[in-house]
Amino acid sequence: MERTLVSEIRVEDNNEIYLRGWIYKIKKFGKFAFVFLRDKSGVIQLVIEEESLFQNLKLEMSVEVFGVPLVNEKAPQGVEVKVNRIEIVGKTYYDLLPFSINQKSVNATLETELDYRYISLRRPDRRAVFKIQEEIVEAFRIFLKSRGFSEIHTPKIIASGTEGGSEVFTVNYFDRRAFLAQSPQFYKQMMVGAGFESVFEIGHAYRAELHNTWRHLNEYVSLDVEMGFIKDEEDLMSLEEGFIKYLLKHLSDTCKKELELLKIILSEVKNIPRIPLSEAQDILLKDYNKISPVGTLDAEGEIIFSKYVKEKFNSDFVFLTKYPASKRPMYTMPDDEIEGMTRSFDLIYKGLEITTGGQRIHDYEMLKSNMIKFGVDPEEFGFYVDSFKYGMPPHGGFAIGLERITMKILELDNIRESTLLPRDMNRIMP
Amino acid sequence: MERTLVSEIRVEDNNEIYLRGWIYKIKKFGKFAFVFLRDKSGVIQLVIEEESLFQNLKLEMSVEVFGVPLVNEKAPQGVEVKVNRIEIVGKTYYDLLPFSINQKSVNATLETELDYRYISLRRPDRRAVFKIQEEIVEAFRIFLKSRGFSEIHTPKIIASGTEGGSEVFTVNYFDRRAFLAQSPQFYKQMMVGAGFESVFEIGHAYRAELHNTWRHLNEYVSLDVEMGFIKDEEDLMSLEEGFIKYLLKHLSDTCKKELELLKIILSEVKNIPRIPLSEAQDILLKDYNKISPVGTLDAEGEIIFSKYVKEKFNSDFVFLTKYPASKRPMYTMPDDEIEGMTRSFDLIYKGLEITTGGQRIHDYEMLKSNMIKFGVDPEEFGFYVDSFKYGMPPHGGFAIGLERITMKILELDNIRESTLLPRDMNRIMP
Repeated sequence: MERTLVSEIRVEDNNEIYLRGWIYKIKKFGKFAFVFLRDKSGVIQLVIEEESLFQNLKLEMSVEVFGVPLVNEKAPQGVEVKVNRIEIVGKTYYDLLPFSINQKSVNATLETELDYRYISLRRPDRRAVFKIQEEIVEAFRIFLKSRGFSEIHTPKIIASGTEGGSEVFTVNYFDRRAFLAQSPQFYKQMMVGAGFESVFEIGHAYRAELHNTWRHLNEYVSLDVEMGFIKDEEDLMSLEEGFIKYLLKHLSDTCKKELELLKIILSEVKNIPRIPLSEAQDILLKDYNKISPVGTLDAEGEIIFSKYVKEKFNSDFVFLTKYPASKRPMYTMPDDEIEGMTRSFDLIYKGLEITTGGQRIHDYEMLKSNMIKFGVDPEEFGFYVDSFKYGMPPHGGFAIGLERITMKILELDNIRESTLLPRDMNRIMP
Repeated sequence: MERTLVSEIRVEDNNEIYLRGWIYKIKKFGKFAFVFLRDKSGVIQLVIEEESLFQNLKLEMSVEVFGVPLVNEKAPQGVEVKVNRIEIVGKTYYDLLPFSINQKSVNATLETELDYRYISLRRPDRRAVFKIQEEIVEAFRIFLKSRGFSEIHTPKIIASGTEGGSEVFTVNYFDRRAFLAQSPQFYKQMMVGAGFESVFEIGHAYRAELHNTWRHLNEYVSLDVEMGFIKDEEDLMSLEEGFIKYLLKHLSDTCKKELELLKIILSEVKNIPRIPLSEAQDILLKDYNKISPVGTLDAEGEIIFSKYVKEKFNSDFVFLTKYPASKRPMYTMPDDEIEGMTRSFDLIYKGLEITTGGQRIHDYEMLKSNMIKFGVDPEEFGFYVDSFKYGMPPHGGFAIGLERITMKILELDNIRESTLLPRDMNRIMP
């Protein structure tokens, strides 16, 4: 007999259906009981009128159920299933659940929830976060493939830290020291030059940052893009703006139920303002008496400026553009119109940076001399620099942190809530 | 002006078109030249009738071209483009290319090709391998999503080696020792139990194996599946068989050009034979005088048995089933019909194992006692074992090595040819 999903249950001529799932709630009334069955698609009320059929049931057992759907206007979905047979297929071995998961809210700290991820994810609202995250990834892929981008998979074990710096994990690779990639930066650029022209990667990135905040992870999923034959960084911002518009449309089409469950109203996106960093800093200073650090905004500045943009342009998103060279990596294309500036940008969404991007230097000699200016020895990045000898076209790209954009779309307080199994300074389990 | 891809060039009323790409070949004839332009979609013959327009061109420069398409029956595709203007957008800085890439074959060893991956991938035949690989991933995703599987991303930095053993890379994780995941095994099982029911992951897996052969990589992409509420391992083989059929159809639909270029005729798949390992060993012994190691086939045995299956069943694929418990991981479900055997299988394709799979133990007590039987302390795998206390349903899964299946579909000699940037005992660059 074919299994019916809870979301597919319809009342039709008393036909028996076959359900699978977990026992979510039990309400006993002497010789009969209401039992709530949860599967990946939803929760349904079962009516069991024989004590022998429910007396051995325990919360979170997995079961198979045969029964008949009936109209019951008092049941949460207007339908319930009268059970003929129920079989326990996955037993339980606990005295008490670590915390109750069938109540309105979870009476446990985030840390406890994460310790028992395999329990907390059983809640439909917790799992909804990852359905939406899955569709963010899907939207990214569909959008870029439709524009001729190739999906690539590049190594995460690398011979030198991608962008230098000490915030990199080391790996013992046979008898050598290797590193975990902080980003696919060098490889995505290389693949543009190798003839793919435009590429994207959905993969893990590693940062050994000594931060343990609500917005930092040490392992995260990076949505990376690199595009060849661009005119300048405006092409990249237009690409990302197109993606953001597509994404929000895609989510409203595919995640209606989950967005309702989480009470999220998606942002409307028209055109995303592009504002030079220095202008943003001036506005912060003049209108909000807020002093920014040199060449960037701090976390508070991002929040205040986002509110300004929301009021002035009715946009939850804003591109900050033209960061100074001193604050961007050595491969960033200088902006020849403004001394010391670069063709780079960040995308700020509801007060948080979710993207860093920009045009890259594509000329071999220019790259080498820029590295030297940055105090970096080009020899250290041998194969990367060498790959620029062979006709690298103008190009650039950006990266979106998957957990960050998920967190902000869903207005979660902590990035760990939008990470299936987070890794931070204190957590490598489960 | 909109850019035209080489594959889109049509001859229409002398309209000027705009092309981008790399200089693939130059044939000078005094004051005019044929120049071949390569972009991601193909190669086109340019006719340049002014010496000043081609005298500075060098192989592999990247350029932008404005010109008019004309019929020329002698041109490789029946069309050529008469150039009005050509602009160099990406210069070259080399005396000689490391090897020539515009000839019928590459006059370099595989190692040299891999050292200069950013050069060798410029060949359409090399890049075709990765277009096909991309579509293998796409087929996997489409097939599973259409069956209600959720795509997940699980950590690669883990606290203990997935399946024990010494073949695991260690990571210095702040002041602790951590490991790189050999597979998402524990996590994909956990997510089945956490309510996703059926999941898949496309991600890196790491094996610190001291093998350096044509079929081993130390970092590879694993196509992982785990499915809840199965009856037994037959459900898993049926799922994989369905995928293989879908895959070959998908490749013939989406990669016609690439398959032609690589001269590949795809396998026909009807039903994939399912043969117990012991029967395969008997056939090898009786018909081929080939002695197999206990509880498995060796590489030669896989090749011979594949030939036998091809002759007898006209199938390039064969499932070997019912491996002995001693040769499978401690979480493998025993087969209660045959003492000492398990509900596990391998998929052999053209003489090479491309999948290992099976039903898993889902009962907490059974898992613990099986671990003890294997000499493993359940405490060592604390969170994994604990997750079985809460109603884990019957489940199982399998994993396909992406580079392996690509290699066998394309009949490549070495797995490094189907890896964008391979990692092996000797190679972590580029």
